Amino acid sequence: MFSNLSAGALGLSLDHTQAIDLAVKHGFGGVDPDLGYFRGLGSDAAIAEHAASVAERGLRWGIAGLPVPLTAPAEEFRAALATLPETLGLLAAAGVTSVGTWVRPMHDDLSYRRNWVLHVSRLQLVADLLADAGLRLGLEYIGPKTFWSTERFPFIHSIGEALELIAEVGKPNIGLILDTYHWYTAGETAIDLVGLSDADIVSVDINDARDDRQRDEQQDLDRRLPGSTGVIDLDGFMDAVRAARYSGPVKVEPFMKSLAEEPLDDVLSDVAARLDKAIRA
Amino acid sequence: MFSNLSAGALGLSLDHTQAIDLAVKHGFGGVDPDLGYFRGLGSDAAIAEHAASVAERGLRWGIAGLPVPLTAPAEEFRAALATLPETLGLLAAAGVTSVGTWVRPMHDDLSYRRNWVLHVSRLQLVADLLADAGLRLGLEYIGPKTFWSTERFPFIHSIGEALELIAEVGKPNIGLILDTYHWYTAGETAIDLVGLSDADIVSVDINDARDDRQRDEQQDLDRRLPGSTGVIDLDGFMDAVRAARYSGPVKVEPFMKSLAEEPLDDVLSDVAARLDKAIRA
Amino acid sequence: MFSNLSAGALGLSLDHTQAIDLAVKHGFGGVDPDLGYFRGLGSDAAIAEHAASVAERGLRWGIAGLPVPLTAPAEEFRAALATLPETLGLLAAAGVTSVGTWVRPMHDDLSYRRNWVLHVSRLQLVADLLADAGLRLGLEYIGPKTFWSTERFPFIHSIGEALELIAEVGKPNIGLILDTYHWYTAGETAIDLVGLSDADIVSVDINDARDDRQRDEQQDLDRRLPGSTGVIDLDGFMDAVRAARYSGPVKVEPFMKSLAEEPLDDVLSDVAARLDKAIRA
Amino acid sequence: MFSNLSAGALGLSLDHTQAIDLAVKHGFGGVDPDLGYFRGLGSDAAIAEHAASVAERGLRWGIAGLPVPLTAPAEEFRAALATLPETLGLLAAAGVTSVGTWVRPMHDDLSYRRNWVLHVSRLQLVADLLADAGLRLGLEYIGPKTFWSTERFPFIHSIGEALELIAEVGKPNIGLILDTYHWYTAGETAIDLVGLSDADIVSVDINDARDDRQRDEQQDLDRRLPGSTGVIDLDGFMDAVRAARYSGPVKVEPFMKSLAEEPLDDVLSDVAARLDKAIRA
Repeated sequence: MFSNLSAGALGLSLDHTQAIDLAVKHGFGGVDPDLGYFRGLGSDAAIAEHAASVAERGLRWGIAGLPVPLTAPAEEFRAALATLPETLGLLAAAGVTSVGTWVRPMHDDLSYRRNWVLHVSRLQLVADLLADAGLRLGLEYIGPKTFWSTERFPFIHSIGEALELIAEVGKPNIGLILDTYHWYTAGETAIDLVGLSDADIVSVDINDARDDRQRDEQQDLDRRLPGSTGVIDLDGFMDAVRAARYSGPVKVEPFMKSLAEEPLDDVLSDVAARLDKAIRA
Repeated sequence: MFSNLSAGALGLSLDHTQAIDLAVKHGFGGVDPDLGYFRGLGSDAAIAEHAASVAERGLRWGIAGLPVPLTAPAEEFRAALATLPETLGLLAAAGVTSVGTWVRPMHDDLSYRRNWVLHVSRLQLVADLLADAGLRLGLEYIGPKTFWSTERFPFIHSIGEALELIAEVGKPNIGLILDTYHWYTAGETAIDLVGLSDADIVSVDINDARDDRQRDEQQDLDRRLPGSTGVIDLDGFMDAVRAARYSGPVKVEPFMKSLAEEPLDDVLSDVAARLDKAIRA
Repeated sequence: MFSNLSAGALGLSLDHTQAIDLAVKHGFGGVDPDLGYFRGLGSDAAIAEHAASVAERGLRWGIAGLPVPLTAPAEEFRAALATLPETLGLLAAAGVTSVGTWVRPMHDDLSYRRNWVLHVSRLQLVADLLADAGLRLGLEYIGPKTFWSTERFPFIHSIGEALELIAEVGKPNIGLILDTYHWYTAGETAIDLVGLSDADIVSVDINDARDDRQRDEQQDLDRRLPGSTGVIDLDGFMDAVRAARYSGPVKVEPFMKSLAEEPLDDVLSDVAARLDKAIRA
Repeated sequence: MFSNLSAGALGLSLDHTQAIDLAVKHGFGGVDPDLGYFRGLGSDAAIAEHAASVAERGLRWGIAGLPVPLTAPAEEFRAALATLPETLGLLAAAGVTSVGTWVRPMHDDLSYRRNWVLHVSRLQLVADLLADAGLRLGLEYIGPKTFWSTERFPFIHSIGEALELIAEVGKPNIGLILDTYHWYTAGETAIDLVGLSDADIVSVDINDARDDRQRDEQQDLDRRLPGSTGVIDLDGFMDAVRAARYSGPVKVEPFMKSLAEEPLDDVLSDVAARLDKAIRA
């Protein structure tokens, strides 16, 4: 696995070339792909050339966002599919290998089983279209009870349920996006990660939680940098990820607005060090 | 439909013959069967004789409890099945036609779909065994969010989900136990009851809710007598039940400990009046 | 319900205007819509004008073919969705209200449950897109054992399974296409049609079977005109369809190549008479 | 893995002690447990003593039959459960570790999905009861098309479907009974066995098929001894079983009545040799 600089996940407004320079400067192993930047390059050849230069600087691609609104109304979903090949062409030209999205852990109208059918239906089709473009799809389950309990019908909010969904869809290019924060808030431990292999994991996020809140009171958008509070068992998590022989990107997504107000190099230096420590331990 | 005196649901300790006398005195249309009393009569003939005398006094039977722990560990469930024929024989001798249970709306270990498989599995078998004895099975969904949100995996807590479960089990002798309190706390309205027929409903409970709490703050075991606070749209509910041409028992289950401290005849007179008003409106 | 002239189902090569003239001449109540003809009219206004003239001549529209290959590879399905709005626009301009397709009753690679997930997935999306255009979708199950037993994994080949699929998809604009030939070859009787309503049936085909073959030896593409051999209980079927208060088109689809060699007016006169007899009985 | 003498599977009438003697004489590694014999010993202590003597002679136990009629009517199934503990007690006393049954690959009334619910329901309960007694449950899928196509609704008849069922039941003590004959008639190859581990396989049967019939014409009860015709790729199958590190019994079940007419020692010598060759190759 490798540390990945995801400016968006850090709440930082960096343009793509700036992000690449900073990733190199601070020793990250990868950087997020930027679909808008790719599109602006104007041709597959130019995108491929750009990707080659990024690779030459020692960086791999992180994960791109799934360019389809998975649970949108049918017509909106259809319209997104109509333009999907162009987008997937850009990602393919750049050599990006994975995209990801999160699963909304509740719904106000659809019961668990009706929401399940909707997710399976959309994922079946999207997974095949992504596979045609050589892309894997990562699905992130969302753990905080303060989130999944806010509407009438809670939905997938644990690793077990996410794996059940992936099994039902039955497409080999779908895997998990694991995040320590969801793993912790879902009440999971290292045992829940036993048996996973690299093929099961598309991306990994590491974060910590506030130490002045109980597990069921943690808020999805109020986290801490990995290792900072010690609330989350980062070591146990990373041991399991290593046992799975995971080979992909590891990033930080703390939803801490304060980071944008600190000196950029300080933030990135700190984040890179935390990622390196977690990966190498 | 008919008003039913269920001492247990009122939190009153009445023995069976006392309950029958009081049901007659206060003009109830039915009374709960009492399995222990039946067993004590010693023979099917004696039970049939007792049932005939209850019928002669103008009372029908309410609903008995399901004599099987539906989601118990396998061995406990198996052991209950081993003695089930004797119990069903008592109910059949008395001419009881329905039993019921509630569905626990959450689980700490089983995900929604694993819990679903457990429920479908047990219900398939139990429904057939009950059908052999001429019994219908009523399932009551539980609405309060203060209940279903207390463990890791919320489960069935709405009428739609309960109907999905019944459809999956696929046995014609399973139906709903409707309770205004669960209907209200589940955020449902009269529209959710459209299309139901007598075959879909095994039993009906009517209750009201506290008027000093929001819907999502209502507690399952802290209710009010039907029509007392007006929080729950009892008229809309009963209109829908009438539209379904429901023919079974209607009872009150307020979980108000204070009832046990009031003069018995006052309580029963009040309950009977509330039931009659709801049924006849 | 009304008799419908479907030249295609009769194996006749009629252009659209010819079909309309012949439908009027022979007293049919409806005629198949013709997407190619509509497209050639060049504008929604011209299509609407055409549709008005057809209506003025006393004809209603039969059912159009579903303009999406339901189980095609993902990219082919996606491409069809990309152009779907244009096609649905043509049908809407003409006032067509339903489209239909059949369900392939076997697969060589997908097990029943994997094929089920594929069908549910595609139907969920397609049904919503059709609903947006005011269209219902009819699904025809295929009954002959000589068909469903020809690959490794038999799939839906009975009315019960078709209804299970429709229930799982959960979209109110999907219904059945009933065909006496599939109903007979599936081993079904009038009892299997009990409980259906007009909302459950999108289209009806009536045919008879060869009288020199057993039920399980009947071939899907070798049928007889309705009422000609008496092998199929047409009266029992039509009684059930009437009991459902079915209001849509009824057509004949005999797969008899000989019809194309007989005098056209003789064929249509005979077919119209058979349909009228079945509808009015 | 080890060769197992199963007199029943060979169509031979041997009493239990005779089978043990012959298993030793011909060098088998195991012998079928005999529930009736165990019961006749009168006490758990006597059964344990018998089992110890069998073990001392170098034999392990094969697989016992599942002592519950899995898909029987509910009351028959319930009655079998009532006496199950006594039976499981006998097997436990003998140290038997696995029981097995086959899955009937079709049904005349239950659609695939309704039959699926029945199987999952019964298996959920039975698997837990067996687990309490330390027993694994092997499920054998049945491959011949001449069998699964004989009723209205084909059911599980391939390894993939059997694994889907086991996954849905979700109990770790359920695995496959693999039989070359079903594997071949189901149209499967070594690829279908990739990824299996010892935990997935409870028992293995090896047989060959007649060389004068096509695959889809093979009859379930008319097979040949393993390796005799070469129709079935025994080597490919056994390579896959070895790759799975399978550790359980391997037996022969040819359904050849002629075996009962040949000299007993000749038959057993031949069978033992064929098993040894397959296991050691």
